[in-house]
Amino acid sequence: MQGKLPDFYAVIPAGGIGSRLWPLSRADAPKFLHDLTGSGQSLLRDTWDRLEPLSGSDRIGVVTGRAHRAAVEKELPGVADLNVFLESEPRESAAAIGLAAAILHRREPNVIIGSFAADHVIQGTNRFEWAVEQAVAVARAGYICTIGIPPAEPSVGFGYIRTGDELEIKGAPEALLVKEFVEKPNLETAKRYVEERTYLWNAGMFIARADVILAELEKNEPELHAGLIELAAAWDDRNQRGPAVDRIWPGLKKIAIDYAVAEPAAAAGRLAVIPGHFDWDDVGDFASLAKLNSRGRGSDLAILGENARVLADASSGILVSQTDRVISVVGVKDIVIVDTPDALLVTTSEHAQRVKGVVDALKLTGRGDVL
Amino acid sequence: MQGKLPDFYAVIPAGGIGSRLWPLSRADAPKFLHDLTGSGQSLLRDTWDRLEPLSGSDRIGVVTGRAHRAAVEKELPGVADLNVFLESEPRESAAAIGLAAAILHRREPNVIIGSFAADHVIQGTNRFEWAVEQAVAVARAGYICTIGIPPAEPSVGFGYIRTGDELEIKGAPEALLVKEFVEKPNLETAKRYVEERTYLWNAGMFIARADVILAELEKNEPELHAGLIELAAAWDDRNQRGPAVDRIWPGLKKIAIDYAVAEPAAAAGRLAVIPGHFDWDDVGDFASLAKLNSRGRGSDLAILGENARVLADASSGILVSQTDRVISVVGVKDIVIVDTPDALLVTTSEHAQRVKGVVDALKLTGRGDVL
Repeated sequence: MQGKLPDFYAVIPAGGIGSRLWPLSRADAPKFLHDLTGSGQSLLRDTWDRLEPLSGSDRIGVVTGRAHRAAVEKELPGVADLNVFLESEPRESAAAIGLAAAILHRREPNVIIGSFAADHVIQGTNRFEWAVEQAVAVARAGYICTIGIPPAEPSVGFGYIRTGDELEIKGAPEALLVKEFVEKPNLETAKRYVEERTYLWNAGMFIARADVILAELEKNEPELHAGLIELAAAWDDRNQRGPAVDRIWPGLKKIAIDYAVAEPAAAAGRLAVIPGHFDWDDVGDFASLAKLNSRGRGSDLAILGENARVLADASSGILVSQTDRVISVVGVKDIVIVDTPDALLVTTSEHAQRVKGVVDALKLTGRGDVL
Repeated sequence: MQGKLPDFYAVIPAGGIGSRLWPLSRADAPKFLHDLTGSGQSLLRDTWDRLEPLSGSDRIGVVTGRAHRAAVEKELPGVADLNVFLESEPRESAAAIGLAAAILHRREPNVIIGSFAADHVIQGTNRFEWAVEQAVAVARAGYICTIGIPPAEPSVGFGYIRTGDELEIKGAPEALLVKEFVEKPNLETAKRYVEERTYLWNAGMFIARADVILAELEKNEPELHAGLIELAAAWDDRNQRGPAVDRIWPGLKKIAIDYAVAEPAAAAGRLAVIPGHFDWDDVGDFASLAKLNSRGRGSDLAILGENARVLADASSGILVSQTDRVISVVGVKDIVIVDTPDALLVTTSEHAQRVKGVVDALKLTGRGDVL
């Protein structure tokens, strides 16, 4: 299928496990392979379906671990072998996106790539497409462009983007310069950000010409850049690729693209942002998952699981059922229950962020078999 | 082993499932077969061990359902075949205890029987024995005697016994007449009962001569009495017993011994009570089970389960683990979690009494397979 944007190529980094969604998310069943919205398909497939009309099905790549190759290809039967970029081990987002940029730049020097997480939830297709179309116009003009979400509430779970002056770019009437990226704030600061109306949520989307990303990487992380260029040169030769990955990949610096590319570009006035007027969530923890699935009825217990056999009374929160057990929930509020064959989690929305600590503790106490 | 009280025979009705402890208690694994205190053995066996020094091992009988015969005999390897009274179906306590009384009276006309629930928890052996010894002295004098517990708090989960005048009976210095039995009160009334110091918890223990129980039954429930006498006449003939049970038992009236015997006897001045100065609990629901296992540390999560693999943080309440799953509990207070192979319950101490409603709802919705 041909996409709307002929010079655009979509990259989906599918790497993170989503530890704060344990025991739903696992090393062998990461967050992006789950249906977290009741859509009937995985977040990864949702992401593909969202991008395909823009890029065309031949121009969507996935960067993922070798361990996930089979699962990814099952979820995305339309993905071309050429467009699956396998990491031998996780090296964070700068290496993942940089690798795609380096390979694609060799194949097609003027390509514009857009990177979109495999495990976010977006509602509002037309508005998403309009934001990406504007971002691509900004990228054509030589900027690195992100898409930021006008905050619906003073979230302390997201990073923020401070916006600056309007940019005058044809086809991108909403484009703004970015002044800076800021880390997850405390509640007071988050409230100020919302009031000032000049901050957007950082949704982790980056759209830019491959050569622009590479130039930025070369400036800020020259060793990482050199490794990626060397790897890309070997990539499309089947005999060279495997040995090159094994030789180069494990030595690459682990660094987020925010630090390696976006923040330095913002400081230099080369980063732009399009406000995205669609619903977006990174579903970072069970509180977020509960909210997403409560459909506004916070007084009910949201239930995720195809074969759930649940008897709930006077309860609210979220229940994830991955077994065929009968589950009875009585009189518990804002509860989080995740029932899987080998592990059970019971917590509350309020403590959802602490699940990552549970995962760390399980590692430390030798129970990594359930991670 | 010879007991301290040669005319005494202990009867253990082991019938109730304990629905409010679902999914721990089941039709095929009733409450009395579980270790609810971490003692390392079942409540039934605890009950046996408590009574044996008083009656001797040859003089303890169990009234139970045919379905539980094998389990009961496994728990009580010392029980004589002669002392297992099998019901073809549950008929409540008047029929169960009345059957034992009728059979034992034929075997031994002057026998004193004492009935003690199979699924209560008692701590304080010497004080328990002293109460039973007094009760037997009172029973010898022709009274029906119960043992009541001075209330430690204004519980609304127990019935109460209103005490009257002191009885002058040798060997029973604490014996009192009973004025009336009262049903589970509301909190206000329970508080008044505790303040007035003339009320005791009804712990469901009855000690009396078999002939006295039968006379009371004959007066109040003549049809039930006649059925039991007919059944008892056939009981010790192996060829007659089975047909007699099948013919008579299903037609017997279902009524609690409290109504059929104790309340009318109290009204007629024939019921006495010994205050029992031992710790007693009927472990009627998970709130009670949590309290029993918290050992005063209400801020902790009590864990029941031999092979429990639990990671708990900032949580209190009780967790019962009957699987080998890893269970993580984070930031939940007064929680009740019962993890079994085919059913999971999550509730709070406050809602523990509602578990019976869950069982009813599961029956109604065709999920009786997990009951």
